[in-house]
Amino acid sequence: MTMDYNSEALRVHKEARGKIEIKSKVALENRDDLSVAYTPGVAQPCREIHNNIDDAYVYTGKGNMVAVVSDGSAVLGLGNIGAHAAIPVMEGKAVLFKRFADIDAFPICLDTQDVDEIVETCVRIAPVFGGINLEDISAPRCFEVEEKLKARLNIPVFHDDQHGTAIIVSAGLTNALKLVGKKLDEVTIVINGIGAAGTAICLLLEKLGAKKLVLCDKNGIMNSGEEGTHWMKEKLVARHNAEGRKGSLADALVGADVFIGVSAPNILTVDMLKKMNRDAIVFAMANPTPEIMPDKAKEAGVRVIGTGRSDFPNQVNNCLAFPGVFRGALDARASAITEDMKVAAVYALAGMVSDDELNEEYILPSALDERVAKCVAEAVNAAAHC
Amino acid sequence: MTMDYNSEALRVHKEARGKIEIKSKVALENRDDLSVAYTPGVAQPCREIHNNIDDAYVYTGKGNMVAVVSDGSAVLGLGNIGAHAAIPVMEGKAVLFKRFADIDAFPICLDTQDVDEIVETCVRIAPVFGGINLEDISAPRCFEVEEKLKARLNIPVFHDDQHGTAIIVSAGLTNALKLVGKKLDEVTIVINGIGAAGTAICLLLEKLGAKKLVLCDKNGIMNSGEEGTHWMKEKLVARHNAEGRKGSLADALVGADVFIGVSAPNILTVDMLKKMNRDAIVFAMANPTPEIMPDKAKEAGVRVIGTGRSDFPNQVNNCLAFPGVFRGALDARASAITEDMKVAAVYALAGMVSDDELNEEYILPSALDERVAKCVAEAVNAAAHC
Repeated sequence: MTMDYNSEALRVHKEARGKIEIKSKVALENRDDLSVAYTPGVAQPCREIHNNIDDAYVYTGKGNMVAVVSDGSAVLGLGNIGAHAAIPVMEGKAVLFKRFADIDAFPICLDTQDVDEIVETCVRIAPVFGGINLEDISAPRCFEVEEKLKARLNIPVFHDDQHGTAIIVSAGLTNALKLVGKKLDEVTIVINGIGAAGTAICLLLEKLGAKKLVLCDKNGIMNSGEEGTHWMKEKLVARHNAEGRKGSLADALVGADVFIGVSAPNILTVDMLKKMNRDAIVFAMANPTPEIMPDKAKEAGVRVIGTGRSDFPNQVNNCLAFPGVFRGALDARASAITEDMKVAAVYALAGMVSDDELNEEYILPSALDERVAKCVAEAVNAAAHC
Repeated sequence: MTMDYNSEALRVHKEARGKIEIKSKVALENRDDLSVAYTPGVAQPCREIHNNIDDAYVYTGKGNMVAVVSDGSAVLGLGNIGAHAAIPVMEGKAVLFKRFADIDAFPICLDTQDVDEIVETCVRIAPVFGGINLEDISAPRCFEVEEKLKARLNIPVFHDDQHGTAIIVSAGLTNALKLVGKKLDEVTIVINGIGAAGTAICLLLEKLGAKKLVLCDKNGIMNSGEEGTHWMKEKLVARHNAEGRKGSLADALVGADVFIGVSAPNILTVDMLKKMNRDAIVFAMANPTPEIMPDKAKEAGVRVIGTGRSDFPNQVNNCLAFPGVFRGALDARASAITEDMKVAAVYALAGMVSDDELNEEYILPSALDERVAKCVAEAVNAAAHC
């Protein structure tokens, strides 16, 4: 790192007093402007919407406005820091939405961590929003919040930590497997860390055809009835470890083709990775310090190594996914983000790296590549209409 | 009117797809920018706020962000049109906040009209906001919502329909009385329409020293136990009509010095106004059509006539008050907007018209006068520190 990001971030946040502001899209210079933007003229769009609620998409910002909702319970690597301390991250997300997809996003940091209260609050504030991006809500509450909200609302609800991560991992893995000449339905994939992201990665890889998934948690291969196990984990164990296989993460990695980590810093060693199959693929996405540094993974003979970081090759980061996913969903006026729309995003992202370009250090496009959100949006929009 | 505001409003709202957008205050051009605005740098302001919740005012937009909250139950002259149809008005309010006081305001249109649900929702979303502007919530629910929210939150909560209107009416009346040489504690003031605005006008005029208030509703002089009477009306009747005086609005106006209407179009006649005292003052603020048109009031001998409209002299409109009130409260980091702060706003507004300038057609500054919000803000800020 050439820059001290921590002190620079404090300076920038303090100087700007946060990262977003509200901007007017209409003139307000004279009495006529006032009479059009406000009373008496404003009554007319109100009447139209009152007659036809869908006209909110025509006369207000609803169709381009996303709520970035968090309860501050699982923020970045910081854990349960609460609603106020989560604001900088949610403002940051809003800034990314605007920059990469021209979507207006507003931070909603909730002073409650009760599932039903979160759901009720989102339902009540939904009228001004065209979509809801759930963010940094801890598992398993995030699954319940998302499921209940989807049932209650007719606008897209998307928990980015789950699905954004699952989409980008799946896209990266699609290309990495192509590179090493292996097939998704034949490889053994170890997923380490079965929280929000790990669960969604597991579910999306299943959907895409993966058959051999080994799920690990901090105690090694996950089994039924373990301490800290909840309903979602039990569901996954029933599908992927019904036989009750036991063992450490090191045991799980013996002969495996793929490691996907959304877990903790420095938990992998060179020796562990040496026991993986030839042409191993490692996505070490713990933030900011990965499960193993790329140079060490290379030393162990790993062929493709990706991390969540922007300062190494192969950044496997959800900021490649969520802007385009929402852009496509909003453009389609989709009432939900379906499995097919996520799959479309996966293949759109993977397809952005041509066979000529594809190599061990380039399996995904750059987060700053202007084409990404547009390409993902078009695919998602098309899938929404199927 | 030279312009058809209705069709122009539809055109402008449709073309712009609403009136507000989110703007980023930080650069996002390269990997370093990303690492400062988002991960990993963003974790540092999060940590600071986690250590000291007040730092949300330092590192986020909280200190300049106001929620414009409505349940759509009493929107403009349109009535109970619901949350979606209220969005254009709340976006309009956000635009006025930005234009006149450089405050970032965001529309929160609630899909509930239950007092406790409104209160709970506002409390839960409060972390990102430095203040709450309640808007277009019908009486008497608005009084309960405001009272309960004030008790629960340590940020300013201000129902603009009540207090913004009361402030600008009080300022206008202060100057009009000065012009005609009468005293507030001696004049008889008829207030017609005892909803949110009428109630607050009554309370603020009392606070400023008015003694003779005659409160009228659509059935004439208000009495205890009438149809449609609620706890707040009963409280006011007990203070101002304990003797049980009965009569029509016309009866109430005989000999009165001041008429303040926040009621319905065209309910006043020339004959009714002719029976008022000499040098009568009439604020006919029904929107968009006043209780009587200014030319008719003049014909009846009224000396000072004000309306809510921008196309007649003496616009008595709360857009002169709320931007400066919030600017002052936010600048002071006030935990509430007190009676003293409202009184400070009244005299700041009244003081903007000098004795030399004061005349029958100029009792208040123009809504587009750039000095207004600044002047009000400074007075409110000073009063907050008393």
